[in-house]
Amino acid sequence: MPIEEKTLKSERIYEGKIINLRVDTVELPQKKYSKREIVEHSGAVGILPITKENKIIFVRQFRKPVEEILLEIPAGKIEANESTEKCALRELKEETGYSAKDIKKILDFYTTPGFTNEVMHIYLAENLEEGTASPDEDEYIELVSLSLEEALEYIKEGKIKDSKTIIAILTYKNLSLIL
Amino acid sequence: MPIEEKTLKSERIYEGKIINLRVDTVELPQKKYSKREIVEHSGAVGILPITKENKIIFVRQFRKPVEEILLEIPAGKIEANESTEKCALRELKEETGYSAKDIKKILDFYTTPGFTNEVMHIYLAENLEEGTASPDEDEYIELVSLSLEEALEYIKEGKIKDSKTIIAILTYKNLSLIL
Repeated sequence: MPIEEKTLKSERIYEGKIINLRVDTVELPQKKYSKREIVEHSGAVGILPITKENKIIFVRQFRKPVEEILLEIPAGKIEANESTEKCALRELKEETGYSAKDIKKILDFYTTPGFTNEVMHIYLAENLEEGTASPDEDEYIELVSLSLEEALEYIKEGKIKDSKTIIAILTYKNLSLIL
Repeated sequence: MPIEEKTLKSERIYEGKIINLRVDTVELPQKKYSKREIVEHSGAVGILPITKENKIIFVRQFRKPVEEILLEIPAGKIEANESTEKCALRELKEETGYSAKDIKKILDFYTTPGFTNEVMHIYLAENLEEGTASPDEDEYIELVSLSLEEALEYIKEGKIKDSKTIIAILTYKNLSLIL
C-alpha cells in the first residue's frame, strides 16, 4: 500500500536561479525514517509549433548537464505570476521568432518525480506567423523543421532524446486518443 | 548556432544518496559567462511489464517531491557496475515480484536535460512469471494492472502523469514506428 510521508525535518541545501535543493526527513510506518532529496522547480512549458506547411519547429541547443547539443521543442521556465499559456507564447516567440494565433494545451506531466517537483505543460501551437527571435543572452539556438514522419524516425534513431519532445511528438501522432 | 560551453569553474554543492548538485561557471562567446546548475544522477531504468493476458503492470507509490500518490511503471536507479538490463530485471522483480523471460530495450531518453544528466532506459518485459516482491525498506508499493486502452484513457484523464510512464505507453502503442 502506498503511504503518504510526513515531513519531520526539512533542510535547505541550496537556492539557485533555476532550482533549489532541500533534504526532507520523513516518517514511515513502524517508526522508520528516511531522507528524501528534493529538487524544487517552478515548472516549465514546452511548445509543439506546427507551421502552415505541416512542419514541426525544433530548437537545437547545447545542454551543459548532458554535454551534448540536443534537438528539442521550444521550452522554458514559467516566470513569477505568469500563466502557462502566456509562458508558452513568450518562449515560442523568444526562441523561434514565431507567434501563434492558436494555442492549446495537450497534456501536463512530471519530468522525473523521484527527485523533483518539476511539472511540464505541453502546448500545441498552430497558425504561426514568422518574426524575429530574441533568445536570452546566454542561449545560442538554431532552428530545425521536420515533418511528423521525420520526427518519429529521429526518435527511433535516437536523434531526439528529450522527454518533453518525445511526449509532444508521440501525443501529436496519437492526438485523437489523448485530446 | 548552438555552441558548446567550456567549464571554467565547478563548485560541488551537495553529494547525496540519489543525486549530487554542482554549479558550473561556463564561458560563452564574446567573453560572456553564465552559471549552470547541474543535478548529477547515475541513470535509471523503467520497465513496461506485459502479462500473458495483455495487461500492463503499474506501481502506485507516494512521491515526496510532488506530495502525491502516482501511478508509474516499475523503475529504479542503476546501481554501481550494473548493466541497464540487469537493473531492469532486478527492479521488476523487487517492485512487482514478476520475473521476465523476454526483455528488450525500447528507447532511452533524458528526463529533463535543462538541469540534470539523468538518462532513463525503457525496457519492454514479456513472458512474465509471478513471484514475491521485495521492495526497498522505504518503499510502499501497490500493483495495478490495466489494458493498453485503459492506460491511454488514464493519460488522457491526467491519471497517469509521469514522463517515463507516458513515453513507455505511447511507444508501446506505436511500437512498429519506434522499434
